[in-house]
Amino acid sequence: MIACVIHGAKDLRVQEQSDPQPGAGEVVVRFGAGGICGSDLHYYFEGGIGDVKIKEPMIVGHEVAGEVVAVGSEVRRTKPGDRVAVNPTRACLQCPECLSGHANLCRNVLFFGSASSLPHVPGAFASLFLASEKQCVPVPPKMSFRVAASAEPLAVALHAVAQCGPLLGKAVLVTGSGPIGILVSAAAHLAGASRVTVTDLFDEPLQVALRMGAEEVVNVKSQPDLLAEFGRDRGQFDAVFEASGNARALENCITSVRPAGRIVQIGIMPAGNAAAPINRIMAKELKLIGSFRFYDEFEWAVDLLAANRIDLTPIFSAEYPFSRAIEAFELASDRHRAVKVSLVAG
Amino acid sequence: MIACVIHGAKDLRVQEQSDPQPGAGEVVVRFGAGGICGSDLHYYFEGGIGDVKIKEPMIVGHEVAGEVVAVGSEVRRTKPGDRVAVNPTRACLQCPECLSGHANLCRNVLFFGSASSLPHVPGAFASLFLASEKQCVPVPPKMSFRVAASAEPLAVALHAVAQCGPLLGKAVLVTGSGPIGILVSAAAHLAGASRVTVTDLFDEPLQVALRMGAEEVVNVKSQPDLLAEFGRDRGQFDAVFEASGNARALENCITSVRPAGRIVQIGIMPAGNAAAPINRIMAKELKLIGSFRFYDEFEWAVDLLAANRIDLTPIFSAEYPFSRAIEAFELASDRHRAVKVSLVAG
Amino acid sequence: MIACVIHGAKDLRVQEQSDPQPGAGEVVVRFGAGGICGSDLHYYFEGGIGDVKIKEPMIVGHEVAGEVVAVGSEVRRTKPGDRVAVNPTRACLQCPECLSGHANLCRNVLFFGSASSLPHVPGAFASLFLASEKQCVPVPPKMSFRVAASAEPLAVALHAVAQCGPLLGKAVLVTGSGPIGILVSAAAHLAGASRVTVTDLFDEPLQVALRMGAEEVVNVKSQPDLLAEFGRDRGQFDAVFEASGNARALENCITSVRPAGRIVQIGIMPAGNAAAPINRIMAKELKLIGSFRFYDEFEWAVDLLAANRIDLTPIFSAEYPFSRAIEAFELASDRHRAVKVSLVAG
Amino acid sequence: MIACVIHGAKDLRVQEQSDPQPGAGEVVVRFGAGGICGSDLHYYFEGGIGDVKIKEPMIVGHEVAGEVVAVGSEVRRTKPGDRVAVNPTRACLQCPECLSGHANLCRNVLFFGSASSLPHVPGAFASLFLASEKQCVPVPPKMSFRVAASAEPLAVALHAVAQCGPLLGKAVLVTGSGPIGILVSAAAHLAGASRVTVTDLFDEPLQVALRMGAEEVVNVKSQPDLLAEFGRDRGQFDAVFEASGNARALENCITSVRPAGRIVQIGIMPAGNAAAPINRIMAKELKLIGSFRFYDEFEWAVDLLAANRIDLTPIFSAEYPFSRAIEAFELASDRHRAVKVSLVAG
Repeated sequence: MIACVIHGAKDLRVQEQSDPQPGAGEVVVRFGAGGICGSDLHYYFEGGIGDVKIKEPMIVGHEVAGEVVAVGSEVRRTKPGDRVAVNPTRACLQCPECLSGHANLCRNVLFFGSASSLPHVPGAFASLFLASEKQCVPVPPKMSFRVAASAEPLAVALHAVAQCGPLLGKAVLVTGSGPIGILVSAAAHLAGASRVTVTDLFDEPLQVALRMGAEEVVNVKSQPDLLAEFGRDRGQFDAVFEASGNARALENCITSVRPAGRIVQIGIMPAGNAAAPINRIMAKELKLIGSFRFYDEFEWAVDLLAANRIDLTPIFSAEYPFSRAIEAFELASDRHRAVKVSLVAG
Repeated sequence: MIACVIHGAKDLRVQEQSDPQPGAGEVVVRFGAGGICGSDLHYYFEGGIGDVKIKEPMIVGHEVAGEVVAVGSEVRRTKPGDRVAVNPTRACLQCPECLSGHANLCRNVLFFGSASSLPHVPGAFASLFLASEKQCVPVPPKMSFRVAASAEPLAVALHAVAQCGPLLGKAVLVTGSGPIGILVSAAAHLAGASRVTVTDLFDEPLQVALRMGAEEVVNVKSQPDLLAEFGRDRGQFDAVFEASGNARALENCITSVRPAGRIVQIGIMPAGNAAAPINRIMAKELKLIGSFRFYDEFEWAVDLLAANRIDLTPIFSAEYPFSRAIEAFELASDRHRAVKVSLVAG
Repeated sequence: MIACVIHGAKDLRVQEQSDPQPGAGEVVVRFGAGGICGSDLHYYFEGGIGDVKIKEPMIVGHEVAGEVVAVGSEVRRTKPGDRVAVNPTRACLQCPECLSGHANLCRNVLFFGSASSLPHVPGAFASLFLASEKQCVPVPPKMSFRVAASAEPLAVALHAVAQCGPLLGKAVLVTGSGPIGILVSAAAHLAGASRVTVTDLFDEPLQVALRMGAEEVVNVKSQPDLLAEFGRDRGQFDAVFEASGNARALENCITSVRPAGRIVQIGIMPAGNAAAPINRIMAKELKLIGSFRFYDEFEWAVDLLAANRIDLTPIFSAEYPFSRAIEAFELASDRHRAVKVSLVAG
Repeated sequence: MIACVIHGAKDLRVQEQSDPQPGAGEVVVRFGAGGICGSDLHYYFEGGIGDVKIKEPMIVGHEVAGEVVAVGSEVRRTKPGDRVAVNPTRACLQCPECLSGHANLCRNVLFFGSASSLPHVPGAFASLFLASEKQCVPVPPKMSFRVAASAEPLAVALHAVAQCGPLLGKAVLVTGSGPIGILVSAAAHLAGASRVTVTDLFDEPLQVALRMGAEEVVNVKSQPDLLAEFGRDRGQFDAVFEASGNARALENCITSVRPAGRIVQIGIMPAGNAAAPINRIMAKELKLIGSFRFYDEFEWAVDLLAANRIDLTPIFSAEYPFSRAIEAFELASDRHRAVKVSLVAG
């Protein structure tokens, strides 16, 4: 089998590896499609993400779907031929976080393509990869692997909305129109928000946000007047999602949300501390709520995609085979040209 | 009548003023006692607080109690001779914040001794002062005015605990052992926290915290090993209150609270932005919750003091008459020697 | 002007009355359309509702929209010619319920067409009727009065969903396929429920529910096997809405919801106590949550209708002029033939 | 060893049994003390509880503490000589309820002395009994076994308060002054309730409630005027706990709680449905919340008892050795004479 292995900054190699053998409760999945995520790009361009650095070669990728081709012992519900979206999270289900309903915060988690622990957990941009049966969620025949693979970032967005609380009838702001920001705006719309506004520095992804359910988009660089309006009457939005990983955007969130409003932080800031107007969080009695990955929401995402409750077509920018992976990663980093770039089998 | 009037930084004058006349719904209160608060000290030492500067002479003081001596028209439940604790908040009860149960965030609020609006709202360190009837809460004869005046900072602490949510059986950390930090630790104890830990840089106020209900105190300067322990197993505390207004303390809070835990920001940071580890709020899925003043909690505070549910004796450091107000303000700023300094009539 | 006046059980008269004169802050609205509600039917068929009996002739009707034709003094934002949906609630905005964000529970409320207080509050099935300016919400020109009038029952449904809490990704059951049950199922769909099931004893309204967003409908009389399935594994639904006012349905709700799940009671039971399996509420740790009318949700409803987020066409069964009001009331009570019957001007 | 074995209604036998042998992860505990609970009395007087009937002889008892005398393999933290309070709950920690933080609702739970499953789970009123190591919580040497055994009913009460949400500054009503009602009132006081009122039909247990922290007690039979006052202004209490298992008391709760207030149902009603004013739950927008057993609260209870935060002395009515168990059960059922009757070793 072949795999996309990161060896260091700008050193991504598509190389042959020995085929994986399923252990107890595990299955072998033949890669169908996979989406390139912002964290994959950090590994590719910087050899790490935030404070985490790659210490050994690692297969990247965690937004994947494919077909089961072999099953190990003790596998009960899954069989060769099943088409599955694969949850990249393997939680221990025994630690205090897991037992309190926060498996996304599992202290012993193994997450595909992550260098947080050593040895690194291999990712799934590989023609064959292992998963536990519990990670595999069946998808209907009509769902493309590209869509199925997108259950992962959609689950991230659904979890952010779940962390926020009810949005029915609410005015919502999302700062950042990357793939996660766009999916958060779509999820907020799906949760009944009466109006969703998305901001970014680039026009092209904002146009995608409009096609994905946002009612209004604002380019904060070219439309500063509109941004200034957000703070009128102490804040025009009931709930705000910071999905850009930019400290200035967080400051805009704090200005734009009404007193006693909610801010969900889902974007990853640069390493180290960020400058934030903490006093205004205090004086407006805001709630700043962290959102990290997802858990049950992965199945929600598959269900909602299967029921055509959300159409992801506008976010798909291009498809590449493994052999052109470097080209795909380069395109994925160009916010003028791409939202979500997919790798596909073949 | 005489009043403590701030004219600018380090320019506090005790001066004569004409007696106040009660309007409709208003009463005149004869000063019984008043506590000097951190914000009073900011006005005294800096001529302002945060981004707010004094623009005209202003009577300071908002933690007060006294005896009603005259009542205006339309006053129904209050009569001369009543002993009252005075809520310094006059909310409009008509704005969206008031009508959604957040009168503490009233956009039209008049708050005793605040330079936020112009003309400034006069404070209550004056031998006679005006209040609306709604601001006056009767206290029993046995309650001293000094204790009654402390209903105000206690209400601040009770509101912070209310913002946090249930504490029964929980391990709680309070960073900052000033008057508010100490009262928050007492309020957390009162709310059933199983263990309350308080940190500060000074030993003397930490000793007061121990006498007010904290189970453990840690001097973060001289006991860094104990501080380091707080972060073990991803955080030892269920809920944390940042009551020091120090960015380093907020960082300690984020480290010390368990995943999915709660942090209440009640301390006032220096003006401008503060450096904060926002990424860890995201990755641990913390909730950072602002707490600003109080509203219903003022009556709770009077009730709890009247029922002897909390004994404030340990926080009272000294009493001074108006004539020695400058001496009182100087002492109140010395954290080695004072927690709460009171002004008294006479 | 003419008005539909209820004089007692089965005694509804369309009669002439003197034209209303607007007081301060009030406007006169020319009736555009109005929906007949279940409570109107109770007044018509029983001369009262629950424990409330009509003590004097009363204009009925509270789901209305129309055009402003005259304005009183102190009216600021509204002018003749405005098309408005009219919130039937006039809350005092001064009582403890109003000031804590529960204006729908206002203890001094005046609600159109209600015999709860004496003199009764007149309803709005009249060619001209009075409303305070605050009750009037402008609607766009393209919105028909029939749709605008439906903002009222839609607000009831939105409030029930708001009382329940987040529904994104959840499986929801609604018992009762009357107008409110159908609108609750549509609101649950709008709030992102992954699957909405509706039950009733009649097939015809269940078919309407299917067209309004329900994924599944079950006739509990003819499909008892499907009902029995609801209780599998201790309950198949995350959240349940009891919208039938039937004690047996409430029992089904308690059986069908998963442990620690939520039940919203919105249906009105027959007068007196109902038999309920309280022990199972205890042993499954359910939350049974009351939902009564609405407040802010009225504006949400207008916004969502204006944005075409919900299409009410399937619920509209027939339109009648005032002169055929009795015919309209008779039809509205026939669950085989009607969901929502409208009165229209002319 | 000897054990208290229930064979049917009024057929309790103290009989010899073979000594238990610890399996992997299990320990043998020598009985120190045990409290007789209402459910034990149901088994004794009725041969079952609610719909559950005894189908085979079963050792009763689940409020117990003692000394570890032997340990099985894989026991890591516990050793012979340890004094322990024993949590009667053995949850599977694998079912959906356990993994969502509701281990008290575990669908596979084994609970000491319960006939819910077959074979019945043996109880712990035995000179030697088995427990898993996880069930054993160490207690300090100074804590008597009688107090340690009471961690169990105290945990029930703490869980009910946790289900209710914050009580700081709130007015609380508890209907029913049995052991659980009294402990709930003590727990509400501990959680910062400003005022706790307890009702019952008997004066003697109400006097115990007063000594355990209630501010006010009302005999609803002899003081109906006071009961009527509870409903003034639509309800005088912020939160209410129904701990009597009486439908009339639940009706009083619904009348006595303010609009939008909370009612926790913890008492067990007679088998079948109860008559309840569901319409008033709807019209006042109450939340009726079930509370069943406890989980983490068992450790909270031990901590709070160890820290002397609660003094249980007033509830202890009498102590009996196993040989006089029948006498103990008879006394425990006499509400004039007993609150909590303990069995003790020897």
